[in-house]
Amino acid sequence: MPSYTPPTKDMQFILHDMLKITESGIPGFGELEPDFTKAILEEAGKLSAEVLHPLNVVGDSEGCRLENGVVYTPTGFKAAFEQIKEGGWPGLDMPEEFGGQGMPHVVGAAVGEMFSAANQAFTMYQGLTHGAASAILAHGSDAQKKTYLPKMVSCEWTGTMNLTEPHCGTDLGMMRTKAEPQDDGSYKITGQKIFISSGDHDMADNIVHLVLAKIPGGPEGIKGVSLFIVPKFLVKEDGSLGERNGVSVGKLEEKMGIHGNSTCVMNYDGATGYLLGEEHKGMRAMFTMMNEARLGVGMQGLAQADAAYQNALEYAKDRLQGRDVTGAKNPDGPADPLIVHPDIRRSLMDQKSFVEGARAFVLWGAHLIDKAHRAQDADADGLISLMTPVIKGFLTDEGYDMTVLAQQVYGGHGYIEEWGMSQYTRDARIAMIYEGANGVQALDLVGRKLAQDGGKHVMAFFDMVKAFCKEHGEDAAMAEFVGPLKAASKDLQTAGMYFMQEGMKNPNNALSGSYDFMHLFGHVCLGLMWARMAKASQEALAGGTSDVAFHETKLATARYYMARRLPMTATHLARIQSGAEPVMALEAANF
Amino acid sequence: MPSYTPPTKDMQFILHDMLKITESGIPGFGELEPDFTKAILEEAGKLSAEVLHPLNVVGDSEGCRLENGVVYTPTGFKAAFEQIKEGGWPGLDMPEEFGGQGMPHVVGAAVGEMFSAANQAFTMYQGLTHGAASAILAHGSDAQKKTYLPKMVSCEWTGTMNLTEPHCGTDLGMMRTKAEPQDDGSYKITGQKIFISSGDHDMADNIVHLVLAKIPGGPEGIKGVSLFIVPKFLVKEDGSLGERNGVSVGKLEEKMGIHGNSTCVMNYDGATGYLLGEEHKGMRAMFTMMNEARLGVGMQGLAQADAAYQNALEYAKDRLQGRDVTGAKNPDGPADPLIVHPDIRRSLMDQKSFVEGARAFVLWGAHLIDKAHRAQDADADGLISLMTPVIKGFLTDEGYDMTVLAQQVYGGHGYIEEWGMSQYTRDARIAMIYEGANGVQALDLVGRKLAQDGGKHVMAFFDMVKAFCKEHGEDAAMAEFVGPLKAASKDLQTAGMYFMQEGMKNPNNALSGSYDFMHLFGHVCLGLMWARMAKASQEALAGGTSDVAFHETKLATARYYMARRLPMTATHLARIQSGAEPVMALEAANF
Repeated sequence: MPSYTPPTKDMQFILHDMLKITESGIPGFGELEPDFTKAILEEAGKLSAEVLHPLNVVGDSEGCRLENGVVYTPTGFKAAFEQIKEGGWPGLDMPEEFGGQGMPHVVGAAVGEMFSAANQAFTMYQGLTHGAASAILAHGSDAQKKTYLPKMVSCEWTGTMNLTEPHCGTDLGMMRTKAEPQDDGSYKITGQKIFISSGDHDMADNIVHLVLAKIPGGPEGIKGVSLFIVPKFLVKEDGSLGERNGVSVGKLEEKMGIHGNSTCVMNYDGATGYLLGEEHKGMRAMFTMMNEARLGVGMQGLAQADAAYQNALEYAKDRLQGRDVTGAKNPDGPADPLIVHPDIRRSLMDQKSFVEGARAFVLWGAHLIDKAHRAQDADADGLISLMTPVIKGFLTDEGYDMTVLAQQVYGGHGYIEEWGMSQYTRDARIAMIYEGANGVQALDLVGRKLAQDGGKHVMAFFDMVKAFCKEHGEDAAMAEFVGPLKAASKDLQTAGMYFMQEGMKNPNNALSGSYDFMHLFGHVCLGLMWARMAKASQEALAGGTSDVAFHETKLATARYYMARRLPMTATHLARIQSGAEPVMALEAANF
Repeated sequence: MPSYTPPTKDMQFILHDMLKITESGIPGFGELEPDFTKAILEEAGKLSAEVLHPLNVVGDSEGCRLENGVVYTPTGFKAAFEQIKEGGWPGLDMPEEFGGQGMPHVVGAAVGEMFSAANQAFTMYQGLTHGAASAILAHGSDAQKKTYLPKMVSCEWTGTMNLTEPHCGTDLGMMRTKAEPQDDGSYKITGQKIFISSGDHDMADNIVHLVLAKIPGGPEGIKGVSLFIVPKFLVKEDGSLGERNGVSVGKLEEKMGIHGNSTCVMNYDGATGYLLGEEHKGMRAMFTMMNEARLGVGMQGLAQADAAYQNALEYAKDRLQGRDVTGAKNPDGPADPLIVHPDIRRSLMDQKSFVEGARAFVLWGAHLIDKAHRAQDADADGLISLMTPVIKGFLTDEGYDMTVLAQQVYGGHGYIEEWGMSQYTRDARIAMIYEGANGVQALDLVGRKLAQDGGKHVMAFFDMVKAFCKEHGEDAAMAEFVGPLKAASKDLQTAGMYFMQEGMKNPNNALSGSYDFMHLFGHVCLGLMWARMAKASQEALAGGTSDVAFHETKLATARYYMARRLPMTATHLARIQSGAEPVMALEAANF
């Protein structure tokens, strides 16, 4: 069975050496001293490793079951959920006003990574609740906040998001679920929603469904979509639970992975719903939830990659097979450990340099959210809006690839379920799909985010990279990091220029390269993260750190990323610059 | 449920327009006229689509079961296996002397692709039998051939290969299974073998296990390994079945995919075995089987990719979602089909250009085997030996990636088992692992095959590419294919030079780049195949073919490969040229 070691030390390095969060000027962040964040991370790590992780394989092998309309979660999930609730973890970064602990999002993200790495299927129950609560927080009336938030912040009630219908997922303008206004101000919701994660289960007293639906007579298409709160049990005036609402589970899906999470077909048969936000402005309200969810899903890519990598590393150290061609490393044993072999190293270093770079990327993104929300920093808000599709798309694609690499280290043992490596691959696969398939992320990036506010945010990104390169350009010790970062950033700029010039002539010249652009952008971001981490480690070493090995390892891993991962930008650029012609040449009938 | 359309037209194009097999000068090949091969391919295609394919999902969902020591295959497998046997398909390219049909390997490979695409788990039962029969054909005594081959060629008896033990897979020198000589010339085999595909089942009267074991007192390590025939039921003098041998199923493995194939732990408890080939020369005999199996596994990568691609294409044509940004293509419908979107095209073209290029690569490889075996062409033999790890490693890695792309086209529907796309991904995953994990293929390529016979075969490959480029270099219509092929081939040569120069100083400089080299080589091979197919289509168009659309589509797909896939060689070269330093920098303890 796999093991999981919480990466709290690496997180502390990112929070304090790289991001220097106490110096970030955000109100209250001066108190986030290393000892303080360490205590939180270690407590969350303990829970992850000791409570959530052992249930990961259980969830995968048992799955959920639907009996007489009720979904039952796998053995042990309910008790673990109680522990999570008792510790107050679901409300870690929620407002104290509603029972949360008011911690920064960057700390919540670090905790979330560990929970996801330990048990993605389980953590989705609270993750979706968090997203739904955020939407109510942003768009709900005072009464709605008062009714739902305290229960959701504590996870006594959980939440879901209901977008997809059988005939439409990405193109939600086609949705058929309708919301008919009632005299009392509520609506009757009727329709079918599919792929509803945590749609029903036995771990909460109530489930608060956020449901997109159309009010008859409203605008056509996506502009006529509204968002509704549809609780499983209606809530009485006094806050206690009333009768069962007209929502039921139509089916529990059999999936490739995340078996421990209940993915439901939800049937709404004249269920009572309450408008959240404004009529026909449902997508705006849903996007509060979606954007948060997208960052969380990007983090899942990293989390699964780390969990898989940790086990591949242990296996590579333990498994004796073959000899080091440059001389036996374990001469008294029957063979050397796998880790002596260069090709195993290649795989492990690909994984390690991704995982640590991605972690920095996610926490940097979370810190931008803190800046935007708590310091009203509009630039940070614009930058994280630009970065959201990159974090979601790039980190889940690469994260998945890393789970495949980790599985491969095990040889045949990686393919049989007994060793648990198949589950990482199967679970990681969903992250490329849900919350907007990665092709949609690329479209969002190229079709919308690049040009947002007159291209201000992407220019700010380039300026930031340029400023970093300039600041450290004269520093000989940083040359090996600044050089490759500059080259990769130039590829990204060239691609952006290509889109501007050729996309004018034909938008397909830009759209045909959107996916490669998302990956090119991701590599530049990880290049920047590695350059920043290299600088932080150089500072620590210069400052006489007691942990020389940790920082030397960071520098070596940064070098690996520059030498072996960043060159990928050239291929993405070449693909982008080939334009729409090769992509669109065929008539559909001639495929 | 997925569908499968046999790609017989594309195969005919490769056999006759590109390879021109009737003109290849191999004895008997003059008779392989298009109508003749078409009849065979269409018959095999019919069986694939109508008999094997419908059982693919059944095999996945039911799996095999072990009851009282006996393995039962999924519903319908046994009847389908009877049909395969009745048609004489298992012996298609086996010698007529033993009941085969004596057809060329290139035809057998084309048939094999369709069988595998339709049902990989099922086809493995006959595939392994074919491999085991080939080993007996090459290394068996006349008596052994007479006893086993007719039954195995017909698949009345099936075969297995037993290499891996719990503590050793790649490093077989450590194996513990022992073979003790008996007075009657037989051996008593004792030990445990794992991951034995088709290890036991209910579809054949007998199972012929080929087992690697050590004769006590023999040389240490891999040089003391011998190969044995260990039948499930002992065979009497008259050829009838005698008593049960001391071999039993210890366990049936639960796997990520290929559930329809029985992957067994096999226990040998003093089982009677018969030496196949010479004492201590077991690896040589096993490699006859392994090399054949590796080519077959490379083909599986292509086969799963094609099956998945076909369904992704259909879905992209059917599913209405969003609008073409350049103008609605289905204005009367609620939305346009997915295939109008450039990013969906990008995915489909990546898949299509891989599948058709890989098919040409596999059939070209199979044709080399025919040349080697039937025309005693030593150069062809050397070339296919060089190509074997590339076909196995590159095509299974890329084939897997293509199943992931195909799954992604379905969005959330790709993740639930109901639509069948998850199975392609899960089944394709094993091909990167078995018959030597792909890292071992890369090691074989760089550590052994490149230098084989003084580097003669890799030089022959470069000469062949050079000759093609020279022959068509003046042809303006071919310039768009010859140019990129030349550039990619130059990257490959540069990488080879790097290995020669820097590998001398430190072998890890070569081994750290072995995996990238295998992929770089694969891309050059597919580039060559696409250039050759482009030429063949130009000739057909010039000759006034009635199927203009088919050949125009070939040319457009060739352009796509050149523009969008071949540029990957630059990244692989950059990774290779960064050498061992970034890969090997860390002490194992510092990971």
